[in-house]
Amino acid sequence: MKPLRALAYARRNRPRFVAELKEFVRFPSVSNDPRHARDLRRCASWLAAHLRRIGLEQVRIVPTSRNPIVYAAWQHARERPTILVYGHYDVQPAEPLREWRTPPFEPVVKDNNLYGRGACDDKGQLFTHVKALESYLKTERKLPVNVKCIFEGGEELGGSPGLEAFVQRNQSALRADAALMSDTRMLGPGRPALGYSQRGNVRIELEVRGPKQDLHSGNFGGVVHNPLQALCEIIAGLHDSDGRVTIPGFYDNVREWSGKEREYMERTGPKDAEIGREAAVPQAWGESGYSLYERITIRPALTVNGIIGGYQGTGIKTVIPAQALAKISIRTVPNQTPQEIQQLFRRHIGRIAPSTVRVRMKTLGADNTVLVERNHLALRAAEFAYEKGFGVRTVFLRSGGSVPAASIFQKTLGIPTVLMGFALPDDHVHAPNEKFHLPTFFRGIETSIWYLAAAAKLRNAGGEAGRQSAPRSVSKEEWQA
Amino acid sequence: MKPLRALAYARRNRPRFVAELKEFVRFPSVSNDPRHARDLRRCASWLAAHLRRIGLEQVRIVPTSRNPIVYAAWQHARERPTILVYGHYDVQPAEPLREWRTPPFEPVVKDNNLYGRGACDDKGQLFTHVKALESYLKTERKLPVNVKCIFEGGEELGGSPGLEAFVQRNQSALRADAALMSDTRMLGPGRPALGYSQRGNVRIELEVRGPKQDLHSGNFGGVVHNPLQALCEIIAGLHDSDGRVTIPGFYDNVREWSGKEREYMERTGPKDAEIGREAAVPQAWGESGYSLYERITIRPALTVNGIIGGYQGTGIKTVIPAQALAKISIRTVPNQTPQEIQQLFRRHIGRIAPSTVRVRMKTLGADNTVLVERNHLALRAAEFAYEKGFGVRTVFLRSGGSVPAASIFQKTLGIPTVLMGFALPDDHVHAPNEKFHLPTFFRGIETSIWYLAAAAKLRNAGGEAGRQSAPRSVSKEEWQA
Repeated sequence: MKPLRALAYARRNRPRFVAELKEFVRFPSVSNDPRHARDLRRCASWLAAHLRRIGLEQVRIVPTSRNPIVYAAWQHARERPTILVYGHYDVQPAEPLREWRTPPFEPVVKDNNLYGRGACDDKGQLFTHVKALESYLKTERKLPVNVKCIFEGGEELGGSPGLEAFVQRNQSALRADAALMSDTRMLGPGRPALGYSQRGNVRIELEVRGPKQDLHSGNFGGVVHNPLQALCEIIAGLHDSDGRVTIPGFYDNVREWSGKEREYMERTGPKDAEIGREAAVPQAWGESGYSLYERITIRPALTVNGIIGGYQGTGIKTVIPAQALAKISIRTVPNQTPQEIQQLFRRHIGRIAPSTVRVRMKTLGADNTVLVERNHLALRAAEFAYEKGFGVRTVFLRSGGSVPAASIFQKTLGIPTVLMGFALPDDHVHAPNEKFHLPTFFRGIETSIWYLAAAAKLRNAGGEAGRQSAPRSVSKEEWQA
Repeated sequence: MKPLRALAYARRNRPRFVAELKEFVRFPSVSNDPRHARDLRRCASWLAAHLRRIGLEQVRIVPTSRNPIVYAAWQHARERPTILVYGHYDVQPAEPLREWRTPPFEPVVKDNNLYGRGACDDKGQLFTHVKALESYLKTERKLPVNVKCIFEGGEELGGSPGLEAFVQRNQSALRADAALMSDTRMLGPGRPALGYSQRGNVRIELEVRGPKQDLHSGNFGGVVHNPLQALCEIIAGLHDSDGRVTIPGFYDNVREWSGKEREYMERTGPKDAEIGREAAVPQAWGESGYSLYERITIRPALTVNGIIGGYQGTGIKTVIPAQALAKISIRTVPNQTPQEIQQLFRRHIGRIAPSTVRVRMKTLGADNTVLVERNHLALRAAEFAYEKGFGVRTVFLRSGGSVPAASIFQKTLGIPTVLMGFALPDDHVHAPNEKFHLPTFFRGIETSIWYLAAAAKLRNAGGEAGRQSAPRSVSKEEWQA
């Protein structure tokens, strides 16, 4: 059954959809700034009211340890599959404000783009699905599948704190056949991409302590192992000159891929030159023997995300700081597990930490790797929908980053997530002048409409899609039609 | 001639002196906080008025590029030497405020100590000389020597910006035979110490730039040389495992001292255990073959004082920062020069900087080393004065840090500085609950009175003390009596 009436409705209502998205973007729902806590709550209320208005049911604002989750459902498609629609209504801080050409929370349309913080990440992308659901409900008075929506307010905090506990607590209520989210990138306008693999992310804080309190570097420079220097020495020792991580055992469980998979990646993935151009560095870096695309997807990486230590102001203060701190994230790949990596890291630090300082390690959080077979039915349905919505074939891409939700759904609910991104490379996500490309918004809504239609068949072709898969990764055997 | 009337005046007026010092401490003259600019000006005015009241002449408040200098003089001692009295009226920030037992700018006397920010560093110590001058002028109506006072307001900014230009501009007006300052430590109550050597200080900022803007560590971790990591690698490579600086040529001009001098240092200087205890580190560190006292005084040191890069907040943000910055200070010793050390550092960085990042170095400032022969007349006079004031023999100590003024006076005026410290090790200088030990304050005033008396003979014994010495260091030949 072609969703013709829903599609027509979506086309007819484009101006209103844009106006509503502007309303949505107007909330400064910056999750990592406590001053915006009220704005987040107001934004959640607005979204909940909106979901009620378009015809979704069981709409609830669920408190979590951080910001509330907006939940909604429609479950009258008996015997049909259930799709878990995910998105996040919180946004990154808008700083630095002076680099914005228009105020970040006063959305403006210019040249087919809607400018504003969160216009793309993730309010705009989340809204494609909301508008697809509306288009069905307002024309057919029903959906082709059962739907459960989870729209969270803590994605930009890192690790989606609160979401995992919520999903775990409501494991049976949230049962579904697949998750659907739009929080990733396309290759370019009209060039859709489906994610099928994400690296995991183990987040670590490493603290080096030396003297009881800050010392004067004149009086003690030369007799004290400066914690900042010791931290640099530890960090410098974590890679060899080939850019490989030196932690013993680190690569032991890294899955080596067949020549066939690597050929597929080479054919479809971004080229070295493209990744290099986007990174805009003087020169690429890293493990030899792998393309840049492989290095950021099927190879693990250890990155220092921040160092805090000593004097931070202008000029200089000649201090030997009492402690220094590094924030480190380790991007893992199948079949590394967060537990194993934390253990290896801790053991290694224990071995190399000099006796002149005290070193402490703390895990801040971890996301598992995500892997869905490319020929999984849920992805095939998405491929079909993209082709309908954009008129072209999609490519399947691995991602170096991770959307924690996909990892949580895989681990807790045992379901694959369809990563149906609508962000363009030049949408300035997390940066000043973020925008959302409106033609992509409209095509996204139609793609989502087609996806819901196609997902109706998820369970029929083989009857396996409803089964819970293994918690950690979705194996081919289990999921193939 | 014994300064008996001045001494009696000083004893008689102790309570008033303390009350006046409290007035002085009450100004929150925090130089590195622009919000206190007005307090610094008010404090300078108060001090200038005070100097006028005690009988000093030519009192002026001289603007500099930063905070004003208070100048005063008394020049009626014909044919007698001239002493340049130095001190600073600016103070360190009082933060963290919650650790103060009494408000930092509401001075309180308790158990023979005056508590307050700046009570010791340097208002109290500066005041010992002001009160000594007053004791003479109010009893004898004259001083035994000519005196020029420079009280600056920028010492705590690092490098005394403004002072060097002022001294250079007024080189001939400031001609003197020796400088006298109290801004250093004694070994303990009743245990005076005279400084005769200070390390120099070359202050450097090192910046590593990678991508044009911050990158997502998921998307780019593994293909980009993280500037923070590159900075750590550079810093880690600046020392070998023995704690020696690896910059080629770094030690070429380091003066090796005779066994006799090292024996003197061993006999009189602090022991390893003392320095270790004060540093309060798990274990000492540094160049083998030298005692800890030697390492911090006659051996150079390179210290990272701060690193700024990447995410600084709580939790984590998975970013590859576009740049990372380190603040570094290099403590030099005779006969290293700041110019030479900057060049060697720059050349070394140029050699080791990887091509995957861009590295930039900037010099923030430099102080020369300071060295006065221990048997210099100016120090002998100070030794005599200390013995009179405290009733004990003083020790001669080298210092690892530097008071920029001493370096500036040596370089620009060619005169030695007498470092006659009255700070006690437990005076909490730069820390919460700073205090000044009042019995030491009173003995300090008497010591200063005796010093002015003894300094009258500076020129008579050999007639050499008035000569300009070599700009960089004061040689034995030139200054010996």
